[in-house]
Order: sequence, then structure tokens, then C-alpha cells
Amino acid sequence: MPLQDHMKLISTDDHVVEHPRVWLDRLPAGLRERGPRLVEVTEDMVRSGLSVPSKGGSPVPVGAEVWLLDGEVHPTIATNAIAGRPREEYGFEPFRLDQVRPGCYDPIARVADMDLDGVQAQLCFPSFPRFAGTLFIDMKDKELALACVQAYNDFMIDEWCAAAPDRYIPLVILPLWDIAASKLELDRTIGKGAKAVAFPEGLTPLGLPSIYTGQWDPVFAVAEAASVPLCMHFGTSGSVPVASAESPPPVWISLMGCNSMSTCSDLLFSPVFHKFPGLKVALSEGGIGWIPWLLERMDYVWDHHRMWTDIDKTTPPSVMFRDHIYGCFIDDLVGLELRHQIGVSQITWEGDYPHSDSTWPEGRKRAAEVLADIPDDEVHQMVELNARRLFDFTADLTVPAPV
Amino acid sequence: MPLQDHMKLISTDDHVVEHPRVWLDRLPAGLRERGPRLVEVTEDMVRSGLSVPSKGGSPVPVGAEVWLLDGEVHPTIATNAIAGRPREEYGFEPFRLDQVRPGCYDPIARVADMDLDGVQAQLCFPSFPRFAGTLFIDMKDKELALACVQAYNDFMIDEWCAAAPDRYIPLVILPLWDIAASKLELDRTIGKGAKAVAFPEGLTPLGLPSIYTGQWDPVFAVAEAASVPLCMHFGTSGSVPVASAESPPPVWISLMGCNSMSTCSDLLFSPVFHKFPGLKVALSEGGIGWIPWLLERMDYVWDHHRMWTDIDKTTPPSVMFRDHIYGCFIDDLVGLELRHQIGVSQITWEGDYPHSDSTWPEGRKRAAEVLADIPDDEVHQMVELNARRLFDFTADLTVPAPV
Repeated sequence: MPLQDHMKLISTDDHVVEHPRVWLDRLPAGLRERGPRLVEVTEDMVRSGLSVPSKGGSPVPVGAEVWLLDGEVHPTIATNAIAGRPREEYGFEPFRLDQVRPGCYDPIARVADMDLDGVQAQLCFPSFPRFAGTLFIDMKDKELALACVQAYNDFMIDEWCAAAPDRYIPLVILPLWDIAASKLELDRTIGKGAKAVAFPEGLTPLGLPSIYTGQWDPVFAVAEAASVPLCMHFGTSGSVPVASAESPPPVWISLMGCNSMSTCSDLLFSPVFHKFPGLKVALSEGGIGWIPWLLERMDYVWDHHRMWTDIDKTTPPSVMFRDHIYGCFIDDLVGLELRHQIGVSQITWEGDYPHSDSTWPEGRKRAAEVLADIPDDEVHQMVELNARRLFDFTADLTVPAPV
Repeated sequence: MPLQDHMKLISTDDHVVEHPRVWLDRLPAGLRERGPRLVEVTEDMVRSGLSVPSKGGSPVPVGAEVWLLDGEVHPTIATNAIAGRPREEYGFEPFRLDQVRPGCYDPIARVADMDLDGVQAQLCFPSFPRFAGTLFIDMKDKELALACVQAYNDFMIDEWCAAAPDRYIPLVILPLWDIAASKLELDRTIGKGAKAVAFPEGLTPLGLPSIYTGQWDPVFAVAEAASVPLCMHFGTSGSVPVASAESPPPVWISLMGCNSMSTCSDLLFSPVFHKFPGLKVALSEGGIGWIPWLLERMDYVWDHHRMWTDIDKTTPPSVMFRDHIYGCFIDDLVGLELRHQIGVSQITWEGDYPHSDSTWPEGRKRAAEVLADIPDDEVHQMVELNARRLFDFTADLTVPAPV
């Protein structure tokens, strides 16, 4: 059956573009001057070789806007925020906020864009701080770095989500360089309404202690106790799977799901879910079509290799998966065909607004097409109910779902 | 229908373990002394901290055998050659040739092991030289390195495959540090019967020019002209996808197929197949269950991003795939279920003898189980005919297929 009108689309992976006052409005007076501020690129800055720090990234032109933070220039303001552009004009720009739709940085304009797309609610990741807030890890001034994290979280909860509580699921970031502070910030933000926390898909490439060290257990314990899932967006480890130095962007764009596979395998063979049986993880933007292959492969490896390696001997990885891990799809026909091998309960839908993978403004239309042959109750689980359960998102719904 | 008796299993991924005389018997007198020789590990060598250079690799004990090459010790003689062992005894040893089945290093004993397994023929990759011969790249003495490559190839063709030409498909390696010499060696070995060539799944991590540079075109031209496929075994780039510093071996064993995904995406977005429309590539040991997901994902990315990136604008990656790339499976139920989305013509079977992924001595039995619900003509393509066509392997078959 087609997607029914009463089913609300809840997207589990979208992105905000931070507006110029996110930090100016919130940092304490003593830190505000050195906190993130949006500045225009000058001739001198271009001469120093400014470019977008992505593979294939474009040079940043004079007149572009960049973030200035504690004397350092960060050229990523809205990477790939191209919603609504014709495909001929995709790229790593835009370089100025006036080149993106207001829905990128204005929560009310975003609601209007959701309405155009037939979407009820979104879970939004940050842009400038990177999807798991890892930008702040390398800052020398840790007091300023912590204040930047807290200001972002306050913006997300008090301004962005508060603008339309029935349309947004609040996701926060952590001061990842300090695990004790991360626990405190997670406590603090859960206290004011956070329903999800961004966590890097891999810690070793970031120079942080891995999930095997046990050092993150206090953070995991808080997340488990509050039923707040860890959202591990692909790319947040800073690693990109590329085969050649000269590979064009489509190579790594296609392969980013491999990062989610690494995360999935690493989590399922680790002690994390044995220690925290209530902990949930979302593999944000990871896709789902690879999951049946990986679960079969992991079970095969578990069967062949558990006797001589230091892994759990009692529970096959595929069983652990269905108790802990959630995937999401944009329009993944293979994954939907194999949904019973993944577990219908483990699948959510995502819109990825305003990035180039997004189907906006045809999100609901495209979802209806790829879900056309799936029974209603399974569709409802995947587009709405699984996300509501996972994120404890029970906001009163007054807006009828557009078709 | 079950696997029919008249269908011969042809395995497209197995491994030889080199015996002590492979190089001693073949290197010119002036090089023989410094060429690979098998020596026993002494107390002194152990004190210097010898260990198997794999993730989670065991320390090498006194009395183990190692290869000595031009003064350097290489502890990998038969990594993971555990065919026939109970799973409790798997590991990165064995450390001595007398700890492995003679079928690992003796081509006649291997035929007997194939008969036990119900297998007609194998394509064998090297062990000590690594699966694509990349061990020799870093040698200082390039004359010795080239002689080592040539001696291995002569061993493979003149000794190993010649022992039972109807049971072996000859695969050669190249002197990869020298592209002109690689072309000459490929010419030379094709002249004496090579039907396949091992080629690294990724070149950049090895410090070699990538497929995008055009520098490998002379090698690809020879392979295309002779209809000799490039066999890109996973792991031959030297890269291992791991998420944590402490991940146990099952994590990366499960994820090695991600390397084949990188190779697949990189090849299909590169100019290689546009320049060489007859070139074929086998993704050796890569598995097949992920292929439908990756093809769908690549087509999506091609659709969204080809207009602003330097990739082909006319042929979707999934179409290119079916003209050029072959996958192989051991027992990949997901891939077999989705075989029509891969292309039945692009799938081959593999045994992976004598490694831990192998189902030996139950290869044919297990294949019959996983193929039980597939029509006979498709089964025959996948277990035998595709491999015969790909490797031009038409050796007279006198041995009836065991059941």
C-alpha cells in the first residue's frame, strides 16, 4: 500500500547551518571575543591558501564567509548545503549564508521547508562544529572549547528545537577531549530536554580513547539510564575510505557507508553492549542495504573465530544488532527488500536536508514510491514509530502530514 | 535443485604456501645466496622482538620457521593456513611447514585435498610474497626483487600448475615497483600460460601511482589484449579497515570486504574501463552480499553528482560493473538471494583453502546447501562456467566431480 496519510515522516538525520549569533548570543563576556564569529574572506586570507578542507574541496573566494575561532579560520560554514539547487550547481560551496535557503539556519523557515517536503520532524546535526562536535577537540583553550560546546547545545535546545517542539528532536554534542566533562554535559543537557547525543563513529582516528578502553563507560551509563541513543554519523571519525589519491568525490561519497560498517562491527565485537544492555546506537546516514551482508559475515566470523579471540562466546553479532543498533535510509531499495533480515524495528527514515543526498522537496513523494510494496504496519514502523520509540519523541502532533 | 554431479566446482580464490626450494631452485647463482630461504628462529631472533606482522599477531617462538631474504627476516610463512584444524586451534600460526597440511605446499597433495572437498580446480595466490607480490616492492636490490618475482611465477606455472594442468589456473605476480618491467613480466608469463594476474586492490597506500594517473595503462593493455583478468584480492593494498586501536581480529576479518567496495567504487568512477572496454577484474575474496547495495548507492551518487565532478556522464556504474567486475562467494546467502541484482554472470565460487574462511573439506557439501534453491543453469554458471569463461580455463576434465 502507498504511504498512508496518517503516517508522519520523522527524519533521523538532517543538518542545521549555524547562524552568526549562535555563539555571540551565548558565550560569557570574557570568552565572546574569541568565540566563533562569521567574517568575510579578504584578499590576504585567500593569498594564504584558504580552501574547503574536504577531498576535492574548492578554494575559498574573496567575499566568502568563514568562521573565525580563537584566531583560526574555519572555512566550513555550510558544506554541501545545496537543497533546492539544480544538480549542475552542486558543489562544496555555498560559501555565504545568503547562498543557502533560510531553512538551513532559521528553525521557522525549516518548518516551512519540512511542510513542503511532507516531513513531520527532524533530528539535526551541527555543521561548523562537525557532525559530532569534533572541531572543538583540538582547541588549545579548553575553557573556551567547553563554552562553545555548551553554547551550541543551548542553541539547539533553547532556540532551534524550542521554536517548534513538535518538529524537532534535540541532539547535543559533547566536549569529547574530556570524558568527565562529557558525562556532565550529557547530564546537563538531558536535564533540559536532549533526546539524542552525537558520538564519533570511531575514536582512535581522532586521538581519543577507544570504546574498548572502558573510559567512556560513564558517558554510556548516563545515555543508557536516560534512554538517550548515541548517534554515530558517518564521517565523524574523520576517516574517509578512498582507494586512490586522485579519486573524484563520487568515490568517497559512495563509500561513506563503509565507515558505518566499521562502527557496526567494532561495536558488536566489543564489550560495550554486554556492559550496557539498554544502550542504543543510530548509524546516522549509514544506509541499510549492506546490513544483511555484514550481519551474515559477522556471524560467520564469530562462528569461525570466537574460540581463539577475545570476544563474547555466547551471543551472535546479528542478535546483538537487533537489540542495539538502528540504521536509516533515504531511498535504499536493496535494504528495504531485505528489511526482515535487518529487522523492521531497526530501520528509520532520514531526509538529510539540506545536503546533496537529500530528496527534498520530494522526500515524502520518494518515500511513498520506495515503500509502495511494503505492508502498512511495517511502513509505519520505519517512517515514524521506530524513531518515536528510539528518541522518546512523543511531542503532540498538530500538523497533519502532507501528501 | 541441489548442485548437480556434472557441475565441476572451480574455485577462484585459494592460496599456496611456498615450499623451501621455490627460490633456491630458480634464482641465478649470483643471487641465490641472498634470495628467500627458510630458516629456524633462534633465541637471538626472538630477543629482537620477532612477531607475526598482522593485527593481533602472535610472537614468533624459537624453532619456528621464517623466511630470510637479503638479510631481512619475514615471519609470515603460512599465516592462517589452518585447513582441517578444530576451531579452538585457529590462529596466526602455524609457524612451521610441518604444522600445515602437505596440500598447502605440495601440488599433488593439494589435488588430493581438492578431491576430498569435491573441487575441480583452483586459482592460487601466493603467501610469503603477499597475495599480490607486494612484499618485493620495498626491497633495495631491484635486480634480486625482479628475480624473486620471476622465480615465483616460474614456480607457479612450471611446477605447481604443471603438476595437474586440469586442476590449476595459473596466476602470476608483477614487479610492481617498475611498471615497464611489470608489462614485460606479464607478457613473458602470458607467453608461458598465465591465465590471471594478481594486482593490488589499491595502489596509493603502497606508494605506487594510482589507476587515475594512466601510468598502468601499458599493463592494462596487455591484460586486455590477452583476456587475462586482474585479480584484486582484499588486503593487497595493505590497508585494513579498523575502527579502534584495540579491535580484536574478528572486527577486521568481518570488514575486509570494505576494501573490495573501495576498489569497486574507485574502478567504476575511474577512466580505466572506458579506456579498456575488454578489461576484467575479479574482486578476490571480497564476498558478494554487499554488491547490490553498493551498485544502488553508486548509481544514486552518479545521478546526483556527475554534473559537477570529473566522472563519466553516460554510463551508470551498475552497467559498467556488469561488463567488467566479478565477485566471488564462499557461502554468502544474502548475495545469492540478490544474485540477479549483481548479475549471475558476474559471480564465481571460491574455497579459500587453506585459510580460516574456508569450508574445506566440506566445500562442495556447503555449496550444495547454499545453492539448493537456485535453478540449475544459474548454479552451473556460478560454480563453474563463469570462472571458465573469465580465466579461459578449458583444461580437459577427466576427474568426475565428487559429491
